[in-house]
Amino acid sequence: MATERLVIVGGDAAGMSAASQARRLKGPEELEIVAFERGHFSSFSACGIPYWVGGDVPERDRLIARTPEEHRERSIGLRMRTEVTEIDVAGSRVRSRDLESGEVAWTGYDKLVIATGARPVRPPLPGIDAPGVHGVQNLDDGQQLLDTLAGTEGRRAVVVGAGYIGVEMAEAMLKRGFEVTVLNRGEQPMITLDPDMGRLVHTAMDNMGITTVNEAEVTKVLTGEDGRVRAVATEDREYPADVVILGMGVRPETTLAEAAGLPLGAYGGLLTDLAMRVRGHDNIWSGGDCVEVLDLVSGRERHVPLGTHANKHGQIIGSNVGGGYGTFPGIVGTAVSKVCELEIARTGLREKDAAEVGLQYVTATIESTSRAGYYPDTAPMTVKILAERRTGRLLGTQIVGREGAGKRVDIAAVALTAGMTVEQMTALDLGYAPPFSPVWDPVLVAARKAVAAVRKAG
Amino acid sequence: MATERLVIVGGDAAGMSAASQARRLKGPEELEIVAFERGHFSSFSACGIPYWVGGDVPERDRLIARTPEEHRERSIGLRMRTEVTEIDVAGSRVRSRDLESGEVAWTGYDKLVIATGARPVRPPLPGIDAPGVHGVQNLDDGQQLLDTLAGTEGRRAVVVGAGYIGVEMAEAMLKRGFEVTVLNRGEQPMITLDPDMGRLVHTAMDNMGITTVNEAEVTKVLTGEDGRVRAVATEDREYPADVVILGMGVRPETTLAEAAGLPLGAYGGLLTDLAMRVRGHDNIWSGGDCVEVLDLVSGRERHVPLGTHANKHGQIIGSNVGGGYGTFPGIVGTAVSKVCELEIARTGLREKDAAEVGLQYVTATIESTSRAGYYPDTAPMTVKILAERRTGRLLGTQIVGREGAGKRVDIAAVALTAGMTVEQMTALDLGYAPPFSPVWDPVLVAARKAVAAVRKAG
Repeated sequence: MATERLVIVGGDAAGMSAASQARRLKGPEELEIVAFERGHFSSFSACGIPYWVGGDVPERDRLIARTPEEHRERSIGLRMRTEVTEIDVAGSRVRSRDLESGEVAWTGYDKLVIATGARPVRPPLPGIDAPGVHGVQNLDDGQQLLDTLAGTEGRRAVVVGAGYIGVEMAEAMLKRGFEVTVLNRGEQPMITLDPDMGRLVHTAMDNMGITTVNEAEVTKVLTGEDGRVRAVATEDREYPADVVILGMGVRPETTLAEAAGLPLGAYGGLLTDLAMRVRGHDNIWSGGDCVEVLDLVSGRERHVPLGTHANKHGQIIGSNVGGGYGTFPGIVGTAVSKVCELEIARTGLREKDAAEVGLQYVTATIESTSRAGYYPDTAPMTVKILAERRTGRLLGTQIVGREGAGKRVDIAAVALTAGMTVEQMTALDLGYAPPFSPVWDPVLVAARKAVAAVRKAG
Repeated sequence: MATERLVIVGGDAAGMSAASQARRLKGPEELEIVAFERGHFSSFSACGIPYWVGGDVPERDRLIARTPEEHRERSIGLRMRTEVTEIDVAGSRVRSRDLESGEVAWTGYDKLVIATGARPVRPPLPGIDAPGVHGVQNLDDGQQLLDTLAGTEGRRAVVVGAGYIGVEMAEAMLKRGFEVTVLNRGEQPMITLDPDMGRLVHTAMDNMGITTVNEAEVTKVLTGEDGRVRAVATEDREYPADVVILGMGVRPETTLAEAAGLPLGAYGGLLTDLAMRVRGHDNIWSGGDCVEVLDLVSGRERHVPLGTHANKHGQIIGSNVGGGYGTFPGIVGTAVSKVCELEIARTGLREKDAAEVGLQYVTATIESTSRAGYYPDTAPMTVKILAERRTGRLLGTQIVGREGAGKRVDIAAVALTAGMTVEQMTALDLGYAPPFSPVWDPVLVAARKAVAAVRKAG
């Protein structure tokens, strides 16, 4: 039997999961695997960077799931610091450049996996490349930030952006003893929540000592005489800063794919079929932060860069490439995060998402507690549910609370996947005992209120 | 309009939830509500008693959700310390006895709710009524136990039974500084788990300093010269005890219902329809610990005494009695508990349950962690999944772990309700961030392993 060659572009979660799964199914005599990674690290947890910077994770290497050597021991030909610069679809080959030696080479493939991930949004503002301004996209970024912190006596940090990365980095900098200001373009922090729920996050961050400035559009980064950052400017104010962290979101890194003429969606991500094969291409797969995924609730493609999806994609691609079978049916938009003790979770559609796709909806918001009211350390939590008008179908759930709040979103995530109505949810048999829940779980209380709202709306 | 009379037998969760909900829908001019409670307390949390005894809950009254006075303020005629001694179905009336005055009276009803709860198993062993032997069924029991503890210098506690109440009381007594021995009839503690998962609980309890003796059938309680308990005897040993706590499970309290000729199931619980109406009786409803409920996974009626079901039943009964509409579709058998730091959860069928109803199944057991492996305080957890052979339909899930483990069972509870296969579960979009979960949630890891087991079994 002839040996096939699988080429993988990108050596992080999706790419290397695909490699590992393909290798489980096919040995090196059947399938040669060559993977290109332009960075210094493979298979690392980008989601863990805020906790490394904040000191919860003591050292960088804890964030590395599998080193290049470990991949190579499993007969995966991982070439580090080697950037793919062109995909030649017609010729079934990729051109790569060794970033150390400068050597350029073409490598042919029978099967190709594009796992190029995402790139951080970094608008071309004056001063944005000044020393002291940091992204937190990869381990090199994290190390550079830590080096800056070690060399800085100043204690003022400005975080630009109030999404997941922004609030997680706000926590990290607070833990490191900085005065933290978060500059947020939106109406409230956590644009992935509705503004009423985002407001709860804002208030909680205030109480932690994190200053959040809403509707603050950064216009430039100001530098001192030493060339280092000294402040961040918006239209009407300057915010002094000894260090600036950019958490302005990410976009699919599809420069190569676009140049190769592969199909991209409205958010710039690659479009795939259910088997994660790039649409219209029998021998090219793609997964992770560079693809768009089907949102099962709205029926639209979205860009949802999350490690958990990337790992699933990789596993599915690896199965398909290795002669097995797997599909990725889509997402419901579940995400969970925290700022210090505050837990923030969401799944499904926000109000604006529902409106955008023509769904009429009702909302119900309740306050309850994570444990029985009489149990020690019981903590308040707010649950908001969106349900479709008339049908009562669950459309989305948002939770803001303390310990025990965040992962409750999984209840709603499964209910969304199953297409349950809020009426059906009220009958769910959820785990109850005083240390774990009030006798009516907060999600059930919200579902009951949503049932009433559906009935009332008619 | 003539005023109807609703009579409720039993003033705890199911009965008083029914009363409250009926009152919300109908005012006193339309519906008179008379409720009889033989005990000293209404609407209390029996589930909270172990935490009160253990000291987590500082005082008894925290466990009372609503006092008799509060019920009366809402025009619910609650008669405390008044026992219903007969239900005359043909005459639509109940006979009651005031336990203080001895007065006996008949009260007619248009609608009747039977919410008589459960009674603890208390085998007629020699010495079982000796001072120092305690049940923990209600607040009086709890107070008597606390009085005994206050008057005892001995530090040896024997807990008879290793179900939820048994292990929770073991924790409570450990917290109070006792040497705790748990005498367990079964092969392993937590008979609601499969033995392999129960073994994990056993080991963890050992490590906490709680001695569990399995396959220990208590034969008698031994008393000292003062008449107080001094030891508990099994066939082959004596276990010295300064205090003994009985946690041997409960049975439906259906003495009155049985005498009235109402239909009982295999476990002695009342049988109802989906609207919680006693089968064959248009004007009698029943809910809470005295009924059997439909297990949606096995299709059989079971007795599942849990406050969360009782509250749902009461709410549904109150809706139906008050002219609204509600049904209780059934349960999937979810339960969660803890012993000190150990969290124990289960939903669906155990291996023996599946076998009993003719289901062939595969199992998959995995070890994972509650958070990302690199995140502080990540804790190990074991997840076991049962899936039907061939179809791969989820049949049950059991979890033993530390913080963050227990409530993950809700994911499986919703998936069971939705009739998902383990293959479908592998695609669930669950909340991921390093403080909350590994990139593959432990439930997903177990589902993946179960998929492989289903495929292998053929």
